[in-house]
Amino acid sequence: MCGTDGCLVKCSSVPCATPKNDTKDTSITINLDHGDPTMYESYWRKMGNKCDITFNGDDSLSYFANGKSLCWFLESKLEEQIKRLHNVVGNAIVDKYYIVVGTGSSQLMQAALYALSPTDQLEPISVVSATPFYSSYPEVTDFLKSGLHKWAGDARTFEKNRPYIEFITSPNNPDGVIREPVVNGNQGKLIYDLAYYWPQYTAITSPANHDVMLFTISKCTGHAGSRIGWTLVKDKEVARKMTKFMEISTIGVSKEAQLRAAKILEVVSDSCLDPKMENFFEYSQSLMTDRWQRLRQVVMANDFFVLQKYPLQYCLFTKDFCESHPAFAWLICKGGEEEDCQKLLKEHKIHTRSGRRFGSDLRNVRISILSRDEDFNIFLKKLMAIRGPTNEN
Amino acid sequence: MCGTDGCLVKCSSVPCATPKNDTKDTSITINLDHGDPTMYESYWRKMGNKCDITFNGDDSLSYFANGKSLCWFLESKLEEQIKRLHNVVGNAIVDKYYIVVGTGSSQLMQAALYALSPTDQLEPISVVSATPFYSSYPEVTDFLKSGLHKWAGDARTFEKNRPYIEFITSPNNPDGVIREPVVNGNQGKLIYDLAYYWPQYTAITSPANHDVMLFTISKCTGHAGSRIGWTLVKDKEVARKMTKFMEISTIGVSKEAQLRAAKILEVVSDSCLDPKMENFFEYSQSLMTDRWQRLRQVVMANDFFVLQKYPLQYCLFTKDFCESHPAFAWLICKGGEEEDCQKLLKEHKIHTRSGRRFGSDLRNVRISILSRDEDFNIFLKKLMAIRGPTNEN
Repeated sequence: MCGTDGCLVKCSSVPCATPKNDTKDTSITINLDHGDPTMYESYWRKMGNKCDITFNGDDSLSYFANGKSLCWFLESKLEEQIKRLHNVVGNAIVDKYYIVVGTGSSQLMQAALYALSPTDQLEPISVVSATPFYSSYPEVTDFLKSGLHKWAGDARTFEKNRPYIEFITSPNNPDGVIREPVVNGNQGKLIYDLAYYWPQYTAITSPANHDVMLFTISKCTGHAGSRIGWTLVKDKEVARKMTKFMEISTIGVSKEAQLRAAKILEVVSDSCLDPKMENFFEYSQSLMTDRWQRLRQVVMANDFFVLQKYPLQYCLFTKDFCESHPAFAWLICKGGEEEDCQKLLKEHKIHTRSGRRFGSDLRNVRISILSRDEDFNIFLKKLMAIRGPTNEN
Repeated sequence: MCGTDGCLVKCSSVPCATPKNDTKDTSITINLDHGDPTMYESYWRKMGNKCDITFNGDDSLSYFANGKSLCWFLESKLEEQIKRLHNVVGNAIVDKYYIVVGTGSSQLMQAALYALSPTDQLEPISVVSATPFYSSYPEVTDFLKSGLHKWAGDARTFEKNRPYIEFITSPNNPDGVIREPVVNGNQGKLIYDLAYYWPQYTAITSPANHDVMLFTISKCTGHAGSRIGWTLVKDKEVARKMTKFMEISTIGVSKEAQLRAAKILEVVSDSCLDPKMENFFEYSQSLMTDRWQRLRQVVMANDFFVLQKYPLQYCLFTKDFCESHPAFAWLICKGGEEEDCQKLLKEHKIHTRSGRRFGSDLRNVRISILSRDEDFNIFLKKLMAIRGPTNEN
């Protein structure tokens, strides 16, 4: 039966021409605004009790973790499994890096801004990112009207002879494109947001080794509810300041979430190394490949939308050429500049995020590809039914 | 053998004249700077597997919780158990209150400041608290140089005809005193920090029913490592803004931590209602009573220190008169104003927090009473050996 895991995996090798049948009511509203990664539930169900973790009443009462880490609240088990996974996947260098754990990577973005902002300046430092940029960057930078940093918009229009902090999101959220720094001034500090630099989304072309690199378990394994992110930091003083931010902001990070994350990452690494286990990244890549193939077919059959294209690249992890299959589709309405794609899709009961939120056009929307099967299938059915706003009356 | 739970409970009814014997090396440094609540481990060990909670690999992947709560990331099980416990203990009204969960109450302090700060003013609103105030308030208010709010120090010297936000900590951290608002201006917004308003620390004299009330599991059950706090909020718009803060700051709160906290609170309520279980608050109160009795004896025998005194009050929960047994001792050196109590104790390998950090004197220190038995016992031995700085040369 379609809509089950077995069928999805099968479809990844034998592309389906049309959305699969589903018994769910297709008249309901589908919310693909957030990147809620429930797609991954199927893999973790298959793992049965391999990831089970039990907490006793007397576990983890203390604020402090056991580790001797600079980040005093970081559980040593989590530190170990983060390093192991990066080594297994080959997507980042970990030797000689400090690890700072956070309540998701959102908190770490703020910790990084805090650590990299000069404290001896009268004016807040400018924070930029190239459009389309992750919609949260302006908000996390400015929501407290901080005197340390202020959002300065598109990195492409920033005057390079001033101090700045640039967010480089690669692959990019919302459009999945591989990115490099844009401003390239000599007074810049760079924060690499590598939340999507995992094999299910993109080719791993080299181990990243930037000064500050953000990761999150939400988009790696799908455990967004745990709120666990981490930063690999080269400079000790920056790591110390980020840790200080975490201390003031939340006095550390939930021990339960850290220890469970350690367990999950351990199983992911195991699955890559043990031929008897189903490789997490191969499984996830196959789901993503199938979804993108079906989405592209629907979009091609419909003359009203366009999707971003991605080059083939050699992946050091899969040891094969592969195309990107981003966590979000960056869909463009072919109409004029006044075309409001988010509004159009909302009329068809598909909630998405408008390009405007990413510093881009009304014609664009970001659509999550990480929903559960049944929602993704209904989404395709709804999308297939759209013939543009002119046909709607 | 002394230093075990049995002995402590026995000592609470039969006061010990001297610190108990302990096999641990007494030359080590004892850190009582933080209020790390490891004292509670003994109760939770006794509970065996009653609080066990297991997470499967496919649990809680989503950012969202199931509840229909305004606070969209709040687990409904936690909401239910928070309400139940307040009803069992009688320390706060919950009917018609919104609950906002946070990564510890530190994050909720910031969320409350965010929600209560006016957005239409050019100047940041003043934030005050009466000295001695919790040492984190200045830091959480000012660490991002926010344009929304700024720390304005002691509530007692604040001019009442201007807008302000006042933190009222009751029982107070650091000195355990029951508090009321101090400024009493007509442009004030009040945040009640009720972290210590539980029966083991103080008499429950009436159910609190203020507009904004902060609580934390760290000081209620001892599970500081979970980083779970909650706010009871009367006004819907304030609750909505606090939820928005949590959304931007960390996209919610760890589901594992919330679900485990729900389990722990459930067992605490059960222990109060089921005569076959050891009542959590009676047990904890007995530990605290014992520690305070022994501490007062050491301080009385030593002419150099003074401790805060507390009145007897009738407790609606225990249905008896009881004295306060705060989580911290507020110790005062009898010497002159230049006496640095924190420095003196540090020379005797006792780490405490200086009164200066609380807007108070160098003569004062805050000392955690919530350490493990062996550390508390060594602390008493070290304290007993001190005869004042003049005897030290």
